[in-house]
This record gives sequence, structure tokens and C-alpha cells, in this order.
Amino acid sequence: MGGSLALAAQARAAVDQVVGYDADPAVLEEALRLGVITEKAANPAEAAAYADLAVVAAPVRSIPGLVEECAVAVPPPRLISDMGSTKSAIIAALSPTAKSLFIGGHPICGAATSGVRYAREDLFAGATYFLCTTGAAFPKLYEMLQRFLLDIGAKPSHIDAMAHDRIMAVVSHLPHVVANVLMEHAGGFQVGGRKALHCVGPSFKDLTRVAGANPPMWRDIFLENREALADSLATMIAELEDFRSLLQTAGQAEIEASIHTAAIFREELLELEDIVPRTLYRVTVHIPDQPGVLSKVMTTLGEHEINVEDLTLHHVSRSVGGDLILYVAGEETAETAASLLHALGYPSAVSLMGDVFE
Amino acid sequence: MGGSLALAAQARAAVDQVVGYDADPAVLEEALRLGVITEKAANPAEAAAYADLAVVAAPVRSIPGLVEECAVAVPPPRLISDMGSTKSAIIAALSPTAKSLFIGGHPICGAATSGVRYAREDLFAGATYFLCTTGAAFPKLYEMLQRFLLDIGAKPSHIDAMAHDRIMAVVSHLPHVVANVLMEHAGGFQVGGRKALHCVGPSFKDLTRVAGANPPMWRDIFLENREALADSLATMIAELEDFRSLLQTAGQAEIEASIHTAAIFREELLELEDIVPRTLYRVTVHIPDQPGVLSKVMTTLGEHEINVEDLTLHHVSRSVGGDLILYVAGEETAETAASLLHALGYPSAVSLMGDVFE
Repeated sequence: MGGSLALAAQARAAVDQVVGYDADPAVLEEALRLGVITEKAANPAEAAAYADLAVVAAPVRSIPGLVEECAVAVPPPRLISDMGSTKSAIIAALSPTAKSLFIGGHPICGAATSGVRYAREDLFAGATYFLCTTGAAFPKLYEMLQRFLLDIGAKPSHIDAMAHDRIMAVVSHLPHVVANVLMEHAGGFQVGGRKALHCVGPSFKDLTRVAGANPPMWRDIFLENREALADSLATMIAELEDFRSLLQTAGQAEIEASIHTAAIFREELLELEDIVPRTLYRVTVHIPDQPGVLSKVMTTLGEHEINVEDLTLHHVSRSVGGDLILYVAGEETAETAASLLHALGYPSAVSLMGDVFE
Repeated sequence: MGGSLALAAQARAAVDQVVGYDADPAVLEEALRLGVITEKAANPAEAAAYADLAVVAAPVRSIPGLVEECAVAVPPPRLISDMGSTKSAIIAALSPTAKSLFIGGHPICGAATSGVRYAREDLFAGATYFLCTTGAAFPKLYEMLQRFLLDIGAKPSHIDAMAHDRIMAVVSHLPHVVANVLMEHAGGFQVGGRKALHCVGPSFKDLTRVAGANPPMWRDIFLENREALADSLATMIAELEDFRSLLQTAGQAEIEASIHTAAIFREELLELEDIVPRTLYRVTVHIPDQPGVLSKVMTTLGEHEINVEDLTLHHVSRSVGGDLILYVAGEETAETAASLLHALGYPSAVSLMGDVFE
């Protein structure tokens, strides 16, 4: 992400000098060769000296140390920021000097990238970019950073560090823990010699897509935000316990109401994406695992002006192929899509979005 | 699913008479008109009389009653089966007469369909089809059902009803509960006037895709399998508690090991789909929300023989568009895909599968 920020700064914020440092000399060399940075530095302080803005893009646990190294540069940078996904622990760890120069940052980018060669200057376009102030930096610095972020196309948004961490615990860190624990539970489960993992369907795969993501990095994120995450876990556990009690007392109305509440929030989420949930239909088409098939499907739909709102592919195996699930608006559109696909030789089924049977 | 089974029977198992019954006369009429069934009956017993095989395709809680109605037909059918997603409670509820004629069935189909007009004869092709015996039916009946399922392309697999329900609790019912509870937790969460739901990324969306699915139907599934589901929930809760303790004691090595375990099971799951996880790269491409764009992307990749192993679309909004995430095998293929997409004017990023940053 640091590379993308460097490219964005050059392409969109008229920055003509980006001095880079990386612990790995090969990465630094590549960044220079690709034009991601304009100059190399021998250490963080050298990179930060004289800078208008020094940005630390590193694993969360190493951020405070690197910010301190930047803060003691001679002369120091005017402003230091970071890109870490937790904020309170980082700010709490800083010295008064570093705090006076620091504004925490956290871009919420849909696209995850790793490696300087995949840096792209538009990574932050339209992305919410959270900013957390330390309370010790000049307000003018905040304005500087805000203007820079607007220049690169991001949407800067001020948030209290504690609020940031609590929200991230709920929408990002907790989901990762849940995916991991669900995968561990199912992975180890077998009855009568039959492994649960061999019986999973698309729902399970959706829920565990992020399971096992980068262990050392996520270990650090979990630990850096451990208070908020532990609170969030406690709430989740209590809610699961409540549901378990409902099962035991067979509380029909309460169970249905609980699913209904989830349905309402899911609709709210879809509406945030400009999708009208009640008009959404799912077209499931079974396709072989061959190059060109997806192209044929998409071209046919495109030719008939059918807009695909969302899609997922559930790969089954090389020989059997998989199910491509397309979400389209309106029953008529869904039926047209299904007959077009049928005509291509790919049988398809239409169902209402909320009808998930496995 | 009943409609698809009827079509499959006619198209693949040389069945020339399918007598149908539905509580809704309009549905029954449509089934006849579409050729899904060959005859209508006035009630379940009339449909089941004289049959070689009577199949109850209905919500789980109504299955035992319908099986009893079939069992008292004059003359009774030779064999009765069902398509419910839980098995123990259904079998336990049956009378001795019904038990002697009944073999429970549960097809695991990736594609979920609703409505007789979306019935497709190949729905069961390649699908695992679980069969649970009551212990009271003649072994010959099992062989009959097995042969029929092989004819329609399914993979019949015998499983003890209790084992079936325990596995389904883990791989299907528990994930639905988790998705619902996570959605309820995040949906209601706000700090300082900022709603958590407004800050979610692709990971959260993956985990809550099935949240709120068909409330009355899932209420019944949860309740029909409530013992196994409550056990599975208890295990999940205990594992979440363990993780919470690790956070509180800051058990670095244990936390990393726990994520690593999830990673190994996720790899095992991908390998079951013939995907070699370590070679999988993610190409994230930002595309506008317009008809024809997906077609352009897929056609370009297809022309270059790039096989997409898996994909998801994360819609952001009408104006911003969304991120299409493609999974391809091999770094070189990923880089080729990225440059092709870049040439189309859609910036894209490549990352290793396990690198999820939000």
C-alpha cells in the first residue's frame, strides 16, 4: 500500500520527490526502477528528513518504532502518518515528540495488494481514509494531510482512535476470527469416518474465504487491537449463547425474529451499495471448468444489456466444473438471463435472493 | 427441488408417470403445464398410491405428516423418501408403518432453486445425495432408491441419520447462525454516531452473504436439528472463548498457530476442488457498474487462455462501480491477466491468496 501511495502522490498530488526506504534492499531497488519512488534512503530517518509528509507503511507492531525513527530525523518531517489497521495502541506508544508530528491514517481499500510491483496510483480513489489525531499535533497538519488525501482521490474521514478500533474490531477483526474458528471447528470434525470438510457447500465457503489469512500479519492486528476485539468477541459469544438458549427452549417466534433482524441489516447493507434488495434475483448456472466459458456467459448477458449486480463462482472440481451465481435486478431480467444461458447449453436456475437452501 | 427431481426422473431414469401434488393448486397446474409432472392428484395419498417411489419435497417440519399421508395410500407406494435437510427428527417422528417404507434423502446441491418453473433435470448431476435408513425398511428398497439416484446422475451415499445431522450442523446450520449473529452484532453497532455497517469491506460481506436467509424456513431447519446445532454452537462458543483468552494473555505463538491451523484446513478444502492453493493468486480489478464490462474482461482473459479458478464481485455503488476479484493459478498468469486488464483501462492489482488486508 505504501507503493500505491507513492505512485498516487506523484500522479495525482503533483509530488515530485518521493524518498523511499525498505528493510529489504531488493524491494527498494525495484521501487526505484519502477518509478514508484524517486530516491532511495539508507534508513527511515534519512527518508523522512526534510519531508513534507512521511508515511510509515509497515506491519502494525513495527509502526511506533518507525514513527519514532522518522520523528528524530534531522531536520524532522513536517508531518508523519501511517497506514496501519489499528490506531489506539500505535498512538499510545508514541513519545510526546512523535505525537506532535503524527496523524494516524487507515485507508479502507477493497483491493488488497502486496509487493511494490503491484502498486497502483488509483488504489485510494473513492476509498474512505480514516484519520485519527493524537491531540498533540497542530490542526494545520491535519488540514495538510486532508488536502493530500483529497488530491489522491480518497475520502478522508476523522474518527476517534478508540472508535476506529472498536468499529474495525466488529467489521474486520471479528469476522476474521470467526472465519478461522469456524474453519478449525469444521476442519477437525468427523463422524463415523466421514469428514465434515468433505460435505461443505457454498455457504460454508463464503464464510471461510478469509480463514487462515496471513498468520503473522493477522496475529499482530489481533494483538494490537486486543481490547476492542476481546469486547467484540464477548458480545458475539453472548449473542451465540442467546441463540443457543432459544434453540433449547424451542423459541420459534424469537428464532424467526432473530433471522429477520439479520435480513433487515443485510438489506440495509445492500442499499448502501445502491442495490434494491427486494428486486434481487439469483441466477445459478452450472458451467464447465474451461477457459472461455465465463467469457461466453458474460458476452451473451452483455449483448442483452443485462447488468450483473454481484457474482460469485463456486468451483466444484476440474471434471465437474462449478456453479456461477449471478445476481440481477428484477424477475423478468433473471428469467431472460436464465433462458439465454440455457440456450448456450448451460442449464441455470433462478431463485429469490433470500432463498438459500444449504 | 421436487420439480427438478420429477424432471430428472422423466429425462434420465426412464420414468413415464409422475403424479404430483401441491398444496397450492396454481403451482400444481403449472407443473402439469410445464411437463414437470404427468398427472395431478387431489392429495398426497392419491399422488402416492400405486407409486414405485413417492418423494416428499416440503419444508422439514411438514415432512413427517406428509410421509404418513403417503404411507396410508391405498395401495401404498413401494418406497417413500424425502428431500429434507435434517434427518433424525423426521425419522424419529414416523409411525412403524411409515418407517418400514421410508428411506430419508438429502441432496447436497450447490444450486438453490425455488418455484416449479425453475426446475431443471440436471440439478442432481454430480451432487452427493445422502441417504439415511430407518432400520425398518427392506434392504431391497435402499437398492431401488440407490439405482434411481445413480440414473439421475447423483452420487448416493449412505450415512447414519445422527451423523448426517451432526455434520450438517457444522457445515451448514452453524455457518447460517454465525452469519446471522455477526450481521446482528455489526448492524446494531455504532460509536460516536458512526455506524459499523457503513465501514464494512469485502471480508464482512463474504461472511454475511447468507445472513437473513428465508426466516421461516431456516427457523424450522434450526429447530429440527436443534440438538446437533446446539452442540456445534457450544463447541464454537468454547473455541471463541479460547481465542479470547489467548488475546487477553497475548499468546503470540498460540494465536499465530491457530490462524495457521485454519490456513491448513482452507488449503485442504481448496485441494478437494482440485485447486493447488499455494499457486493461487488474486487479481483485483476495479470496474465501473455498466453492462458489457464483465463481458469485456472475461472475453479478453478467455482469448488469452487464462482460466479463472474462482471469482467474486464486490459491488461498491452505482457511481463508483466495484472490485472484481479473480483467482488464477500461477504468478505469471496473474501478471498477464493484470496487464491485459490494465490495457483495457481497468487498473488491477495482484496479490497472493492468503494476503487479505481488511
